[in-house]
Amino acid sequence: MKNIDVCLTPELLHQYDLENKIVVVVDILRATSCMVSGLANGVKEIVPVSTLEECKELQNSGYLAAAERNGSKAEGFDMGNSPFEYMDEKVKGQKVAVTTTNGTLAINKSLSAKEILIGAFLNLKAISEYLKNKEEDIIVLCAGWKGKFNLEDTLFAGSLSHQLKGDFEFACDAPLAAEAMYLTAKNDMMSYMKDSSHAKRLAKLNVVKDIEFCIQESIYDVVPYLSGKSLLLK
Amino acid sequence: MKNIDVCLTPELLHQYDLENKIVVVVDILRATSCMVSGLANGVKEIVPVSTLEECKELQNSGYLAAAERNGSKAEGFDMGNSPFEYMDEKVKGQKVAVTTTNGTLAINKSLSAKEILIGAFLNLKAISEYLKNKEEDIIVLCAGWKGKFNLEDTLFAGSLSHQLKGDFEFACDAPLAAEAMYLTAKNDMMSYMKDSSHAKRLAKLNVVKDIEFCIQESIYDVVPYLSGKSLLLK
Repeated sequence: MKNIDVCLTPELLHQYDLENKIVVVVDILRATSCMVSGLANGVKEIVPVSTLEECKELQNSGYLAAAERNGSKAEGFDMGNSPFEYMDEKVKGQKVAVTTTNGTLAINKSLSAKEILIGAFLNLKAISEYLKNKEEDIIVLCAGWKGKFNLEDTLFAGSLSHQLKGDFEFACDAPLAAEAMYLTAKNDMMSYMKDSSHAKRLAKLNVVKDIEFCIQESIYDVVPYLSGKSLLLK
Repeated sequence: MKNIDVCLTPELLHQYDLENKIVVVVDILRATSCMVSGLANGVKEIVPVSTLEECKELQNSGYLAAAERNGSKAEGFDMGNSPFEYMDEKVKGQKVAVTTTNGTLAINKSLSAKEILIGAFLNLKAISEYLKNKEEDIIVLCAGWKGKFNLEDTLFAGSLSHQLKGDFEFACDAPLAAEAMYLTAKNDMMSYMKDSSHAKRLAKLNVVKDIEFCIQESIYDVVPYLSGKSLLLK
């Protein structure tokens, strides 16, 4: 039977063989939530890059440039890392280059996979439906925080594992644990998240509104995937 | 405030600074459960080593040698990795050298810590009481399975984090998540564990009795610690 596995941080990714697998990259707060929101609201394409320099270069060749480091917008760029910025009128129809502390790095570490998808609570149903019919094994890659485990990405991994349970076998204990956490948390996600380190970090930056937005389930019916260097919609 | 952190697998240990910290090594199935059982039942000292060769050498100089690889006893050694072997009359008063797939490696990766303790559900209360009064920060190091996350070690990390919550702050999301998992699982640990990959692996080897034994809470009032190369009791 095909299976689903969860990689809890990019620093454990060397333990996984990505060949012929579908990788779902998740960085709930906030990179992949932004990507889903932007593409669902008319952004033409998004190019994830690992460094500020690459992002700057693309800015110079006509891209809107979004850059976040340690939760805040980096100086000299057009946008930071809030989903609301990605829904702004001025972004519609545009191409966006983006670099973030964790999320874009996770994408660029997954390039040997057969297919790379972008997951968030915002498109949970769309991505589950898309994956249900696939024959390949799946790895959910949690972006984490600077190489460490984080709560919100693991909760998403748990929710996706739960959705796909009937069609995919759990490959190890990580999907099992993530699913248990999600089932405990799902009826009151916000209060469950309030003690998480990243929510605390962001609360200091006044982005509680972003968190409330990012934990909404299945409000967008889109499946972003990496095509060449760009994220587009299926 | 002093804090407690959880390292989910030894492959993430490079992210943690062990200096001046107390590390609690845990490998519930079954290395640290064996160590606690043995020392509580009269084993004189236990020397954890990383390789079969080192274990053999100590066997040649008078130690009882316990060696496990992939869940089974390695050929040519006196004992495997069952807690019941460590309670046998013939082990009383003896010195034991031990190497296992995950647990002894985790101990030997922690040598830069100020103090290394051996934790298991079997001595949960004793180790919590001992740690409550310490001033140092604590890292619970889960031995995992071949570098990957596992359920039972994380559940122990969660139980210890829960016990120490009043006296230690959670350093990141890992203790938070581990505690949530433990609180979900604690009233029916055996059925919660039945789907775990290691329990399945061991069930094939007919050691369900070992699992039932290892998930008992606080039946031994001992705190094993590393002194030089040996595990002794506080």
